Amino acid sequence: MPVNLAQLAPTDLRPIEGVTLGWAEANIKKPHRKDLLVMHLAPGCSVAGVFTENRFCAAPVTVCQDHLAIGNDIRALVINTGCANAGTGTLGMHDAQATCAAVASALQIEPTRVLPFSTGVILEPLPMARLLAGIPAAIDRLAPNNWFDAAHAIMTTDVAPKAKSKQIQQDGRTLSFTGIAKGAGMIHPNMATMLGYIATDANISQTLLNTLTKRVADASFNSITIDGDTSTNDSFIVIATGQAGTTRIETETDPACAPFYAALLEVAQYLAQAIVRDGEGATKFMTIDVSGGASHAECKAVGYAIGKSPLVKTAFFASDPNLGRILAAIGYASREEASLKDLDTQKITVHLGDVLVAEHGGRAASYLEAEGQRIMNEAEITIKVNLARGDAHATVWTCDFSYDYVKINADYRS
Amino acid sequence: MPVNLAQLAPTDLRPIEGVTLGWAEANIKKPHRKDLLVMHLAPGCSVAGVFTENRFCAAPVTVCQDHLAIGNDIRALVINTGCANAGTGTLGMHDAQATCAAVASALQIEPTRVLPFSTGVILEPLPMARLLAGIPAAIDRLAPNNWFDAAHAIMTTDVAPKAKSKQIQQDGRTLSFTGIAKGAGMIHPNMATMLGYIATDANISQTLLNTLTKRVADASFNSITIDGDTSTNDSFIVIATGQAGTTRIETETDPACAPFYAALLEVAQYLAQAIVRDGEGATKFMTIDVSGGASHAECKAVGYAIGKSPLVKTAFFASDPNLGRILAAIGYASREEASLKDLDTQKITVHLGDVLVAEHGGRAASYLEAEGQRIMNEAEITIKVNLARGDAHATVWTCDFSYDYVKINADYRS
Repeated sequence: MPVNLAQLAPTDLRPIEGVTLGWAEANIKKPHRKDLLVMHLAPGCSVAGVFTENRFCAAPVTVCQDHLAIGNDIRALVINTGCANAGTGTLGMHDAQATCAAVASALQIEPTRVLPFSTGVILEPLPMARLLAGIPAAIDRLAPNNWFDAAHAIMTTDVAPKAKSKQIQQDGRTLSFTGIAKGAGMIHPNMATMLGYIATDANISQTLLNTLTKRVADASFNSITIDGDTSTNDSFIVIATGQAGTTRIETETDPACAPFYAALLEVAQYLAQAIVRDGEGATKFMTIDVSGGASHAECKAVGYAIGKSPLVKTAFFASDPNLGRILAAIGYASREEASLKDLDTQKITVHLGDVLVAEHGGRAASYLEAEGQRIMNEAEITIKVNLARGDAHATVWTCDFSYDYVKINADYRS
Repeated sequence: MPVNLAQLAPTDLRPIEGVTLGWAEANIKKPHRKDLLVMHLAPGCSVAGVFTENRFCAAPVTVCQDHLAIGNDIRALVINTGCANAGTGTLGMHDAQATCAAVASALQIEPTRVLPFSTGVILEPLPMARLLAGIPAAIDRLAPNNWFDAAHAIMTTDVAPKAKSKQIQQDGRTLSFTGIAKGAGMIHPNMATMLGYIATDANISQTLLNTLTKRVADASFNSITIDGDTSTNDSFIVIATGQAGTTRIETETDPACAPFYAALLEVAQYLAQAIVRDGEGATKFMTIDVSGGASHAECKAVGYAIGKSPLVKTAFFASDPNLGRILAAIGYASREEASLKDLDTQKITVHLGDVLVAEHGGRAASYLEAEGQRIMNEAEITIKVNLARGDAHATVWTCDFSYDYVKINADYRS
């Protein structure tokens, strides 16, 4: 079961002026489930995206990047589950474009103003007849209050829908942010693919939105890991409709920029953490805070080395304070970040929750196993590592590694 | 159960002139098991080593490197299981040196001529009283025919002992090679640590042995992965006693060098593969052959991306030809090897056994799921990837990822 996700679920999702959503049951993989989503945008939105770096990226990812590069106003998004349209070669590109064309035709816009997304099994062609047949039903349902159904419509192996709203003030008016996400991670997702969409009625320039979207992705969806795999389809999209009637935010020095960024980050981090909480087979939610690094990159490398280690993750599943595994992971983080080759392990301190575990290259003299056990028994655990060689900092979120992870992934296709 | 390890076990292990071995039950972690091994070497051996790159390397690894750097003739090795003496700070260094001193005193040699090794739990101090008390019994047993018992004495979570002999001819005389190993991997081992020792009566210069040992390690113990973790204690040692009465091999151009290297590599690859066959919870043995790369490093990065992926490994556990996961892993190998960022996925071919699975960026037109299923049902499976951008090649060996992996590692300390 997801770790404390139900308790943290939002009680209401705010509509975003300029965005309507409609879903369908298109029978793409299984009957009687929402598996197709269309988002319709008013003219004049700023839309920014961050995508997987996997070289075998899916056809829809390529089409998204092409359509965003054209610079036309994006007017619609279409998302299907059940099939990733990845590893599908030329046919896959054709299918992604045909999907855009069908949505464009129904909405009377140009096909290049549509962004397509797919998630599901790789190497299988999209079932185009069923997908295209589902589009009219989705468009018929377009309405501003469908965010909760939209969060359901993009789920695959997710146990729970992931959505959040946030409101702030600008120019004496209310700005709203509403986001949905599915899957397991951006840089290190499981195969179920991470998709994230946040819309706001704020008014912000396209250039600044591009910059802030990348920064937000780095501190949210790019700071989580379930199993170290990187999907072919991961995508994160931010839509700013500009319909709140506020002044356009043009630069980072604009006083309205910092609150905008903070609100966007808060929604993105909630969604990213929700993905970890719903990680396949997860029973624990771990926050890995790495400070004192010479660079952000080396802090993140240490955080990911710990967060990806199957040995660390199985020890947390067992609630076993086998903390040497954390030290070992710190020690091999130099595999991913060469600057760590001169890491002085004598200076490092490691805390488990509020308990000092390691210092001077070994177990802390004050450490008591009972104290470590007390922390390990909790469902939410923070690991704090201080590298004591600089001022940089990074946080990574991950979950434990359980029997159910193996079960889910050994059975996924069946 | 280990994958086809019993069937491949050697029927006899050859003694190596100049090497005697003795074991003890020192009760280091559990009673009534061989957990201490002493190897005694005749004067004049060449001894070369390759060690973990983990920054939290264990005290015995540091002492080994120091003693090898001194350049004295190494005359003894002492190996304990049950405790890794890693993450033990200043006390750990003292304990490793005290262990060397005890062996040196008993054998009447200098302490710097002893190499110490430890494997087991991290962050715990060595139980020195029990370890030192066991040394006389091990030395009393020193004999040339104890290789099989030695293979048992270095086991931790290993299900089966790992050992092999090989003989070749040089100068009309027989050269013998005998090796033992334990654990799970060199670069990506599980926490049980990989230790490997190969002795030969060949006569070879120290400098050349250093070079060849590194090369052999790269193509054997550094080409396997169980779970992607790198231990604090991994060590691989080659001992050449020179007692066969053959001419000293001084350079790579010596005609005797190539057969020597081939024999050493054969024993090392057998032992490395045995470690994978005995990988924690393994039910399948996978060989990943990557060819057509622009460099050896990028072939190895692709091999390791596939071999480390929990999604690929759980699919093999389930005998599920969910082959998109292999493409996804190839696609993100650029995370570890930047040269792959311009990989052209349209040109890649992927074979599962003799079945063409993927080409032109997607599933091969000729591929039949029944054919993929036929290969997946086997216990030993070869995945062939051709990157079609150069002449380089690399092979990586790995195993699948099962319920039992989680069980073993969630329970390891208890």
